[in-house]
Amino acid sequence: MRIAIMIFEALTALDAIGPYEVLSRLPGSEVTFVGPQAGPIRTDNGALGLNVDVTIDDFPDPDVFLIPGGEGNRPLLTDERVLEWIRTAHETSQWTTSVCTGSLVLGAAGVLQGKRATSHWAYRELLSNFGATPTAQRVVEDGKVISAAGVAAGIDMALTLAERLAGSEVAKTIQLGIEYDPDPPFDTGSPEKAGPELVARVRADESG
Amino acid sequence: MRIAIMIFEALTALDAIGPYEVLSRLPGSEVTFVGPQAGPIRTDNGALGLNVDVTIDDFPDPDVFLIPGGEGNRPLLTDERVLEWIRTAHETSQWTTSVCTGSLVLGAAGVLQGKRATSHWAYRELLSNFGATPTAQRVVEDGKVISAAGVAAGIDMALTLAERLAGSEVAKTIQLGIEYDPDPPFDTGSPEKAGPELVARVRADESG
Repeated sequence: MRIAIMIFEALTALDAIGPYEVLSRLPGSEVTFVGPQAGPIRTDNGALGLNVDVTIDDFPDPDVFLIPGGEGNRPLLTDERVLEWIRTAHETSQWTTSVCTGSLVLGAAGVLQGKRATSHWAYRELLSNFGATPTAQRVVEDGKVISAAGVAAGIDMALTLAERLAGSEVAKTIQLGIEYDPDPPFDTGSPEKAGPELVARVRADESG
Repeated sequence: MRIAIMIFEALTALDAIGPYEVLSRLPGSEVTFVGPQAGPIRTDNGALGLNVDVTIDDFPDPDVFLIPGGEGNRPLLTDERVLEWIRTAHETSQWTTSVCTGSLVLGAAGVLQGKRATSHWAYRELLSNFGATPTAQRVVEDGKVISAAGVAAGIDMALTLAERLAGSEVAKTIQLGIEYDPDPPFDTGSPEKAGPELVARVRADESG
C-alpha cells in the first residue's frame, strides 16, 4: 500500500501529520511525503520545517493520496502541474483523500464533480464552485473519494480509511496505539457547538 | 510567550505536532522547535523529515517547554546534556510539559519527584521509577507540570495549557479553528475501552 501525502509551502501541519500518524501504522503501508518541489518547506505560521522527500512527478501512481489544507494550498488551485498530477493519480488510486481545504484542490482538479464532499467549515460552501455538494459531516465518503472537515478531522478520516484498507480490528488497534480517546476540555469544535461569537472570531482570524 | 518543543531523531510526530497546532495559534506566542542537534531528523518510522531549528544550548530559558515521546527518546533518558537542559529550563519555566513517553524524560531529569504524572498507557507505570505517581488521566496537572497520555492526548493537553496561558475564550476559539470536534469511528482509544485482546496486540507491537 503506497500512500502519498502531499505537502507544500505554508500548509497546516496537523492536516497532514494527523493522518500520517494513523496511516503509517498500517501493516504493509509505506507513507511518502510528496510535493511540487522536493526539499525543505515551512508551515503556515513558519514555525515548523518539514521535508518534501519526493516530487510529485516521481510518484505518479500512489494507491492512496491525501491533499491537506492551509493557506499554502491557494496557489495550488491554479497550478496546472499539481492539478494534472491529481487527475492522473486519481485515475488509478484506490482512495483519493483530503483534509480541510485540501478538498478545494481536489475540486479544482475536477475530481469532485457530482460528488458530496466536505472541508473546513469556514470554506465548505466553496466546494459548490467545483460541482461538488458541500456536506456538513466530519468525514464524507463518496465512491473512492474521502474528504475530512477542518484540520483535526483528518485523524477521524484516517481511521475510517484504515478500516477500509485493513479492516476494523487493525484500525481499532491503531486507535489504541495512539491513545486517541479524545477528551477536549471544551466542546467548541464545530460552529454549531461554539456559537456565533466564536465563529465570528475564527472567521476574522482566517480572513486576516 | 516563548514556547520550545523538543524534537529529536525517531520521535513520534503527532506527540509534537498536535500541541504545536494548538499552541502556535496563541496570540503573542512563538513556537520554536529545539533539539539536541540542529538540522534534519526523521520520525520513528522514518517516513517524515522534520527540522530542528535551534539547539537546546541556544534556548535555555523557554517560558513553556514540551517533551514528546517515541522510541527516539529512550537515549535521552541517559543523555546528561538533555537532562541538565530540562533541569535548568524547568527552574524558570512557567509550564513544563510532556506528551506520551516524554514524561519519562522529565522523570529522568528529576523534575517529577513527588508529582502526579501520566504517559502512554503502556509505559505509565514506569513513572514510579522516577519518584512520580503514575496517574491514569488523559491530562495531569501538578503544579507547573502538565503531562499528557499517549500521542493524540497532546491535543487535549495543549488546549488545557492554552486556557491556562490565555483564558478559555482563546482556547475555545483555537478548538473551533482547528475543528477539533472529535468523532472517531470506533471507541477503542483507551485500554479500558479497547479490551484485553487489542491491548495485547499493541503491547506486542510496542515491544517489537
